[in-house]
Amino acid sequence: MSFSLAEIAQHIQGTVYGDSDKIIQRLCSLEQAQENDISFVNGAKYLSQAQNSRAGVLIVPSELVESLKPQCSLIEVASPYLAFALLTHLFAKPSSIHGISDTARIHPTAKIGKNVSIGDFVVIGAYSEIGDDSTIYPHCFIDENVHVGISCYIESNVSIFTNTQIGNKVRIHANTSIGGEGFGFAPYQGQWHRIVQLGKVCIGDNVRIGSNCSIDRGALNDTIIEDGVIIDNLVQIAHNVHIGKNTAIAAKTGIAGSTQIGENCIIAGACGISGHLNIADNVQLTGMSMVTKSITQAGTYSSGTGLLESASWRKAVVNFRQSIETPASKINKQIQKLQQRIEQLEQQLSTHRPNPDSEPLKTMTQNSTQDTQD
Amino acid sequence: MSFSLAEIAQHIQGTVYGDSDKIIQRLCSLEQAQENDISFVNGAKYLSQAQNSRAGVLIVPSELVESLKPQCSLIEVASPYLAFALLTHLFAKPSSIHGISDTARIHPTAKIGKNVSIGDFVVIGAYSEIGDDSTIYPHCFIDENVHVGISCYIESNVSIFTNTQIGNKVRIHANTSIGGEGFGFAPYQGQWHRIVQLGKVCIGDNVRIGSNCSIDRGALNDTIIEDGVIIDNLVQIAHNVHIGKNTAIAAKTGIAGSTQIGENCIIAGACGISGHLNIADNVQLTGMSMVTKSITQAGTYSSGTGLLESASWRKAVVNFRQSIETPASKINKQIQKLQQRIEQLEQQLSTHRPNPDSEPLKTMTQNSTQDTQD
Amino acid sequence: MSFSLAEIAQHIQGTVYGDSDKIIQRLCSLEQAQENDISFVNGAKYLSQAQNSRAGVLIVPSELVESLKPQCSLIEVASPYLAFALLTHLFAKPSSIHGISDTARIHPTAKIGKNVSIGDFVVIGAYSEIGDDSTIYPHCFIDENVHVGISCYIESNVSIFTNTQIGNKVRIHANTSIGGEGFGFAPYQGQWHRIVQLGKVCIGDNVRIGSNCSIDRGALNDTIIEDGVIIDNLVQIAHNVHIGKNTAIAAKTGIAGSTQIGENCIIAGACGISGHLNIADNVQLTGMSMVTKSITQAGTYSSGTGLLESASWRKAVVNFRQSIETPASKINKQIQKLQQRIEQLEQQLSTHRPNPDSEPLKTMTQNSTQDTQD
Repeated sequence: MSFSLAEIAQHIQGTVYGDSDKIIQRLCSLEQAQENDISFVNGAKYLSQAQNSRAGVLIVPSELVESLKPQCSLIEVASPYLAFALLTHLFAKPSSIHGISDTARIHPTAKIGKNVSIGDFVVIGAYSEIGDDSTIYPHCFIDENVHVGISCYIESNVSIFTNTQIGNKVRIHANTSIGGEGFGFAPYQGQWHRIVQLGKVCIGDNVRIGSNCSIDRGALNDTIIEDGVIIDNLVQIAHNVHIGKNTAIAAKTGIAGSTQIGENCIIAGACGISGHLNIADNVQLTGMSMVTKSITQAGTYSSGTGLLESASWRKAVVNFRQSIETPASKINKQIQKLQQRIEQLEQQLSTHRPNPDSEPLKTMTQNSTQDTQD
Repeated sequence: MSFSLAEIAQHIQGTVYGDSDKIIQRLCSLEQAQENDISFVNGAKYLSQAQNSRAGVLIVPSELVESLKPQCSLIEVASPYLAFALLTHLFAKPSSIHGISDTARIHPTAKIGKNVSIGDFVVIGAYSEIGDDSTIYPHCFIDENVHVGISCYIESNVSIFTNTQIGNKVRIHANTSIGGEGFGFAPYQGQWHRIVQLGKVCIGDNVRIGSNCSIDRGALNDTIIEDGVIIDNLVQIAHNVHIGKNTAIAAKTGIAGSTQIGENCIIAGACGISGHLNIADNVQLTGMSMVTKSITQAGTYSSGTGLLESASWRKAVVNFRQSIETPASKINKQIQKLQQRIEQLEQQLSTHRPNPDSEPLKTMTQNSTQDTQD
Repeated sequence: MSFSLAEIAQHIQGTVYGDSDKIIQRLCSLEQAQENDISFVNGAKYLSQAQNSRAGVLIVPSELVESLKPQCSLIEVASPYLAFALLTHLFAKPSSIHGISDTARIHPTAKIGKNVSIGDFVVIGAYSEIGDDSTIYPHCFIDENVHVGISCYIESNVSIFTNTQIGNKVRIHANTSIGGEGFGFAPYQGQWHRIVQLGKVCIGDNVRIGSNCSIDRGALNDTIIEDGVIIDNLVQIAHNVHIGKNTAIAAKTGIAGSTQIGENCIIAGACGISGHLNIADNVQLTGMSMVTKSITQAGTYSSGTGLLESASWRKAVVNFRQSIETPASKINKQIQKLQQRIEQLEQQLSTHRPNPDSEPLKTMTQNSTQDTQD
């Protein structure tokens, strides 16, 4: 797998500085790239790293062309990071799954599109549809009445349950469960009474779902993931959650039932979002944020205490606890009262003072004392 | 799938107000229900939503009968939420797995009960037993000597390891691992020495376990989950944990080794409970709670800082850190000392004061000052 | 399965006190052990538990030999906990997977070593290698060009993707995904552009990975897990992470992209470590720690607030919030200012005071007052 500099430049719509016929064999990091490799410089802050790189070709933004031209061949682009992303597709290894395995169990009523690849031991239930150009890895279980769109990629051991709707160009990674029954129970007389979940999961186009995720179907209405949403590994999405377009959710985050997440949100790793909340568009949460109330304003939000050396941390936790009895508001009031009393005292004492021309107060009081001693 | 109002009323033991022959096609939310649908009103706080609903039938508590009778047919019940839970079973879709697949690999010594459904590519090991009326979805691996009770439901890609005991009416969702080896290692001379886990997992009746859960077997004794426990997705239950009856555990919670959880606890999402603790009966933990000590009293417990806008949060974290050097207790002492000093000052100055009839202090001191100036 | 006391003593290199021919049938906890069972006493703090045990044999450290010799047979060892760990291997049940299943789909170009066990419905791709004495449980998917070393143990439903390198004596538990595509997207014009991940995952010898873990392959460079690392269940290891030798990672921890973890670290459950950080060797994190900055010094670190009864906790959270407006530093300054003002007042008033022999100030001031009244 190798490409000429010209081919690569065309793929990323860049301008070549150097030999267009040069052959590129690998796409590498700045540290690992060698003479036949290409790498990218994502802005001026990577300039010194770039200058130490042995890469034969660098993808650079306009402002770095002059600095790096003497060093090696260049491709100038508007966004080197986007160019890098596009270029990874050129160097991608093809999937190992080709054609439809004779060990797959596909229900006769299922509709399989053109150019679909289905791996060994895949099970596809009645009335399900797999769109053209989709690939399904071994050991997937696709239940009845599931719709998978075109050009989807579904990795091994994924389970997709009845009635799930999946759009086009959706990628689902290994061991993920979609459309399982939501966690709904009515407590009554000390026991939990299961609420069968009658809704489904609807996933838009261009969605990415990581490995070991759980996305449950709705109780009555549906769980909805809109177009362009990207989800990392080990993410929990409970029943009736709605996630708006192009929102990104990092690994280990959990979203409880019926919460609505806006569009273009960025939710970092291991966040926990309570149920029945509304999170506005363009909200960003930093890692491990705990969200227990709706967020109505775009912005960046956080929670937690930050990390401390454990011995210090224990003291800080004791203080956090003590703050219940002596909150800052109480301390503030105490300080204000002290202030007032001091002011009164000062006022009282100031009236002792002679005018500026006179002797200092201490002289006065000394004399006064002497007087009494008389 | 449709039912008469009379049939539904009988199923949920309610009283009909309206046409008993009316045909109901779907169970829906108040917003989505139409003329041939039934919905439920879970108390007076949903009254206005109910009044805006186009549902043909509403399940209502006694106190709302009069308000809603003019609007549509009603079924009056003691607990509309429980009635809803019961009704979902009436509208449930049947499982897609029927009979025993010819692709399943069932060991000749395994005992399969009556009316059991086993999906494609299921593996069942030697001496294992599957109780009557149980359903096992495709790609499950059930190792040797596993006991699965009657009317169990085990979804696709579940792994259940040797000696696991599972009661009746247990539901286990996709990709969950039960009876895997606990995380036990003896540190010695800078290395970790594996402790083979010789215990097993015992699960009672009516237990529900979500998808992508890990429930490990005990080191020497067993990991025990008692009757009626319900567990959401992505939950970690370490070796030798014991969970009491009817406790509910929401998604992403982890319970470390040898911890005992009482009965009727409600543990919200993403909690972390350290090892070797005892949690009393009827304890409730709010989301993301961190439990590092035993809890001996029933009650509701929480941890964390709550969410803040990130810029403010950074300041609060700095303060949390600074509290180590200047805890509230220290501030309190400082304030008390200041208070005492002010009191002394006040006392001292008060003795300057003339009796109420006399001239004000300032006059005195002015005179006094004049005296000294003489 | 039973052993003589002599056999057991030899296996754990201990000294027998008692009948060497005694037959031992089980390895049990102190509470559960009976006459034909062996248990262990991990130091003096378990002495009274040991004295209440009905175990026929106890493994003890030297300092407990005299106390326990009258009670039962003993094996004296340097480290009872290590001896226990070693002994569990003697009592381990053998794997249920033997030979190569005729239902496994092994690509003709794959190389399978000697004495390998491969379970039902396993899929092994082109050019992959499985080392001697390895066991692969049912439903595993091993993609192309994967290398698995000797004496590895890979449980059911594990997915291992193209180019992954796995050393010797590696154990991987059920439903884990290794070598899946890292979560890399370039944001551009409001959309996420997928970065195909071209790196791989490299795992050393003697590594243990729990169930339901996700270990993603690198973007350009590799994700690396060094020898002796032990990882619990539901752990997320993102692309390009590097974990040093013998580090232990407990369940539900997540490590974000490109972070480097040192050697011999102990990371407790449910920690979250941000991306692009460096964690030094010998760092210990307590449970649920949030790490957002590199850690350069060995030591123990923590975060979080500790658990509180919820009503109190809410107050503490309000205070945490209020600390933004009134931090301890501000309160300190206020207190210092008050202190200065009080000092001035005290100084001023002290000059009123007579010398210790004289009459008290109040007398003086009374007189003084009287003076003015004159």
